[in-house]
Amino acid sequence: MHAYRSHTCGDLTAAHAGETVRLSGWVHRVRDHGGVLFVDLRDHYGMTQVLADSDSPAFAAMDKLRAETVIRIDGRVKLRDASLVNPKLPTGEIEVYATDLEVLGPSDELPLPVFGDQEYPEETRLAYRFLDLRRESLHNNIMLRSKVIRSIRNRMWDQGFTEFQTPIITASSPEGARDFLVPSRLHPGKFYALPQAPQQFKQLIMVAGFDKYFQIAPCFRDEDPRADRSPTDFYQLDLEMSFVNQEDVFAAIQPVIQGLFEEFGGGRPVDANWPRIPYAEALLKYGSDKPDLRNPIEMQVVSDHFRGSGFGIFAKLLEQEGTEIRAIPAPTGGSRKFADRMNAFAQREGLPGMGYIFWRKAEDGSTEAAGPIAKALGAEPTEAIRQQLGLGEGDAVFFLGGKPEQFEAVAGRARNEIGRELGLTQENQFKFAWIVDFPMYEKTDDGKIDFSHNPFSMPQGGLDALNGDPLQVKGYQYDLACNGYELISGAIRNHKPEIMFKAFELAGYPAAEVEKRFGGMVKAFRYGAPPHGGCAAGIDRIVMLLADEQNIRQVIMFPMNQRAEDLMMGAPSEPTNEQLRDLRLRVLPKE
Amino acid sequence: MHAYRSHTCGDLTAAHAGETVRLSGWVHRVRDHGGVLFVDLRDHYGMTQVLADSDSPAFAAMDKLRAETVIRIDGRVKLRDASLVNPKLPTGEIEVYATDLEVLGPSDELPLPVFGDQEYPEETRLAYRFLDLRRESLHNNIMLRSKVIRSIRNRMWDQGFTEFQTPIITASSPEGARDFLVPSRLHPGKFYALPQAPQQFKQLIMVAGFDKYFQIAPCFRDEDPRADRSPTDFYQLDLEMSFVNQEDVFAAIQPVIQGLFEEFGGGRPVDANWPRIPYAEALLKYGSDKPDLRNPIEMQVVSDHFRGSGFGIFAKLLEQEGTEIRAIPAPTGGSRKFADRMNAFAQREGLPGMGYIFWRKAEDGSTEAAGPIAKALGAEPTEAIRQQLGLGEGDAVFFLGGKPEQFEAVAGRARNEIGRELGLTQENQFKFAWIVDFPMYEKTDDGKIDFSHNPFSMPQGGLDALNGDPLQVKGYQYDLACNGYELISGAIRNHKPEIMFKAFELAGYPAAEVEKRFGGMVKAFRYGAPPHGGCAAGIDRIVMLLADEQNIRQVIMFPMNQRAEDLMMGAPSEPTNEQLRDLRLRVLPKE
Repeated sequence: MHAYRSHTCGDLTAAHAGETVRLSGWVHRVRDHGGVLFVDLRDHYGMTQVLADSDSPAFAAMDKLRAETVIRIDGRVKLRDASLVNPKLPTGEIEVYATDLEVLGPSDELPLPVFGDQEYPEETRLAYRFLDLRRESLHNNIMLRSKVIRSIRNRMWDQGFTEFQTPIITASSPEGARDFLVPSRLHPGKFYALPQAPQQFKQLIMVAGFDKYFQIAPCFRDEDPRADRSPTDFYQLDLEMSFVNQEDVFAAIQPVIQGLFEEFGGGRPVDANWPRIPYAEALLKYGSDKPDLRNPIEMQVVSDHFRGSGFGIFAKLLEQEGTEIRAIPAPTGGSRKFADRMNAFAQREGLPGMGYIFWRKAEDGSTEAAGPIAKALGAEPTEAIRQQLGLGEGDAVFFLGGKPEQFEAVAGRARNEIGRELGLTQENQFKFAWIVDFPMYEKTDDGKIDFSHNPFSMPQGGLDALNGDPLQVKGYQYDLACNGYELISGAIRNHKPEIMFKAFELAGYPAAEVEKRFGGMVKAFRYGAPPHGGCAAGIDRIVMLLADEQNIRQVIMFPMNQRAEDLMMGAPSEPTNEQLRDLRLRVLPKE
Repeated sequence: MHAYRSHTCGDLTAAHAGETVRLSGWVHRVRDHGGVLFVDLRDHYGMTQVLADSDSPAFAAMDKLRAETVIRIDGRVKLRDASLVNPKLPTGEIEVYATDLEVLGPSDELPLPVFGDQEYPEETRLAYRFLDLRRESLHNNIMLRSKVIRSIRNRMWDQGFTEFQTPIITASSPEGARDFLVPSRLHPGKFYALPQAPQQFKQLIMVAGFDKYFQIAPCFRDEDPRADRSPTDFYQLDLEMSFVNQEDVFAAIQPVIQGLFEEFGGGRPVDANWPRIPYAEALLKYGSDKPDLRNPIEMQVVSDHFRGSGFGIFAKLLEQEGTEIRAIPAPTGGSRKFADRMNAFAQREGLPGMGYIFWRKAEDGSTEAAGPIAKALGAEPTEAIRQQLGLGEGDAVFFLGGKPEQFEAVAGRARNEIGRELGLTQENQFKFAWIVDFPMYEKTDDGKIDFSHNPFSMPQGGLDALNGDPLQVKGYQYDLACNGYELISGAIRNHKPEIMFKAFELAGYPAAEVEKRFGGMVKAFRYGAPPHGGCAAGIDRIVMLLADEQNIRQVIMFPMNQRAEDLMMGAPSEPTNEQLRDLRLRVLPKE
């Protein structure tokens, strides 16, 4: 018989009754039922109930077992009494009467129990990650992650893509975050960088004549940690295609993502209709460039009803240039109580409050508009608003006004809150939208023009467009929004050096700077570059959505903590003097 | 019609004759056949012949095309004349008469042609890697690599393994090479390290209760470059299993590797018999722990025939302790000419020469032994040697003597040379062997005891064995040799802290040092560690064998040069002052 096992802890069923078996695993739990000892023996595959009474040669050893000890037992498979069958457990029909027991890996007193659901501080869980990972929910998340990545790979191959690995120790490839640097020993004083994304390499792969590339790519960004971001390395599904336009990229990736969510979404419906929503429209209707379309609320501009109206605050506001009043319809929200709740929300967001109107049944049975704005505005404009928004008795509307860029984000959050509070947002489903026509440039706080997203995107209208107002230029740049999260970001690339130099010039980068920072790619574009484009999808985010987890550390095997430390392995740590000498580096004292 | 193509350059056949099509690709070659221009248009998928005569609106544009320009053409598919059909090309039955042409990506004068087989200096090829990659052989190698990795993944999943990603920015995990360090910005003065292999993490994954792990894992070793090693990052198939012995690991991996070589070996036979050869036997028989078994020669000890014999050099040598005479049989090598060639080989290896005997037909028709050793040794011992080795007329034998560790490597190379020279080595096949029973320890040049291979291996005989002579201790450690290369290395791990501390103590590492360097893993072993083991296989080496390439840079998309520089991207490079300030580092001047 094998030294450790004839079966796994998930194998045995009634069909094995009477067989002599050997199992190995972890002692999940020991129970003493009046002289009979029960051990729930756990391995990767499942759990099997093992027992011994005082007649068993294994009894004495079993009596001393501590939880999480690794043991090997020999024994005989017995059918459980009908009343004791556990239908939830694949091995629930049987138990194993142990006749021999060997401790393969003893366990000290546990700092963190594996059995049970007790919450533990995250720092303890990370320091003893190997114990935390034995818990069922985390184990399942990590297995899910693995299956998701496998499925992505297969789906990409099925779509005709080929996976290539791009260098990890390489040159800086700025993507807006800080690079992690790697000092060179062979060239002291010089540094490699870890790629923030394989952006330049995947474009070079296209220039090199490979047509459809993908990679489950490790990416590295030295950013300050937050809950939904790994502070060091993370993985993205990175892809690029040649001779394509935007719709070709969409057509390639939708079946992958949709199939994935159907496969692993646990039966939650996956909407196959992925609308294309221009960036400006997304901000207007949803107050976000990653709208949650499970929420049916769409905002509208209602400025005209307030212009010169009796509601002085808005009327006055609208006299300033660039201002608007937007309405957030709240079907079924037509009560003073709900209006008060939303006002409280607005105050938490730092606003004085949110104006509203709601419609209720009047004493005479007709529908009447209520709330201070309705009163000030008068019956006719109030009715016009109701008609524009398609609202009726029992519904409400909330208003926000000012310069859109100043209130859009809050409006978006209010829309989420209203949708959730009123139960309008249909949870337990996945709804996607391509957000398109992103602006190429934005004005920074100090009034300069800078790229608003990826500087490598092709501007719509090409070189001509760049000779006009930069703030009007849209890029062939797109995001995929899912349930309020940005899942994918991508673009058709700018493969023409002259357009690229012009695009960077507008953002204040002289040609020499472009040559210096992106020299490899720019050089390549001079020797026959195909039109190309692609996108990248965050693996962690996808798994978080599928596993319904809010914390990225729940879907990574060995995550860093919030201070970018690995408490289990002790990273980062002091280098040795020899290492520093090899690299010709000195660590400066704290200032 | 699509903006760039209705078909790829590999799609069109006689079935498309008469259709109007749109193609995009690179101008592989332009030929002018007396007023008719022919363009070989190339993309990832293939090559299509495009032509235009002076009646075509595309003629003028085509006349100006430079090689490697990216163009889009519209045209009509025509059957070629029967005499012009190219059966080697999938599109060889047709050509496309171009009616429109658009330059999508112009090309400057090429520093490196894509068309043709001309050799170019490697530095040029690396600086313009995107051009070199367009060449057919490199393109094919990179595609092969991708398919190989895909196949490995599928085969591992089919064997019940699950792929997990382990951290890349992490703690030092010493594997005998230097670490690449990554300075921490959040913890200035502290450094992360890039893993030399996921050794500790995969063992932690086993302790965490996952049973069968694998990963196509990026590994990082700061070693001085050589032809068959990437100086920065490389990939290995890394795997680990719980509750296994050595044979379980072999049984898991053999189908993967064998299937892979059958799939991608281009029809070269793949021997299914993988013998287990103890390390000591491998050195004796083959002079190598990675023997090439395509070569049938097996060396033997023939000391007894020389002890006190008339061949004074060997007789005297054997009086020293620890010496041996070994014979390398050379069937069909029985000629003075071949003996001279081997002597020249021995001199190139720095030896004074190699003793030999060969057997020839004497004038009287009998078999006679020739050469100086036969003469000095006398007829009887010479005949005994012949019989021991099973040699006969037309064969030869070469001798090496001394302390085995001093001549074994040369003997191994002589065996290779003899096998190759005599055509005994059957090229164009793959033969594998598991080399087992590696010694745990070796004596270093300064007489100390150190680990000879992986310090994490379980010593055969456990703790007891460690109380005897360390140089006698064998480990559950194994390599897979293929055609003279080490393809895989692995071990059953030492999962018991007390045995681990003892094993390190013997190699001169105090407990505190072990705790410091491997603290995370040692801690984990105290909370229920399963017996486990695994191995790692070099992906680059596998692809090199399959592609029949000698240089690792022929199987990596974007390799570093021999000085660990990326000439295309300009890495490594000077950091900015701001970056150094963020990291609180100063680069010291050259001494």
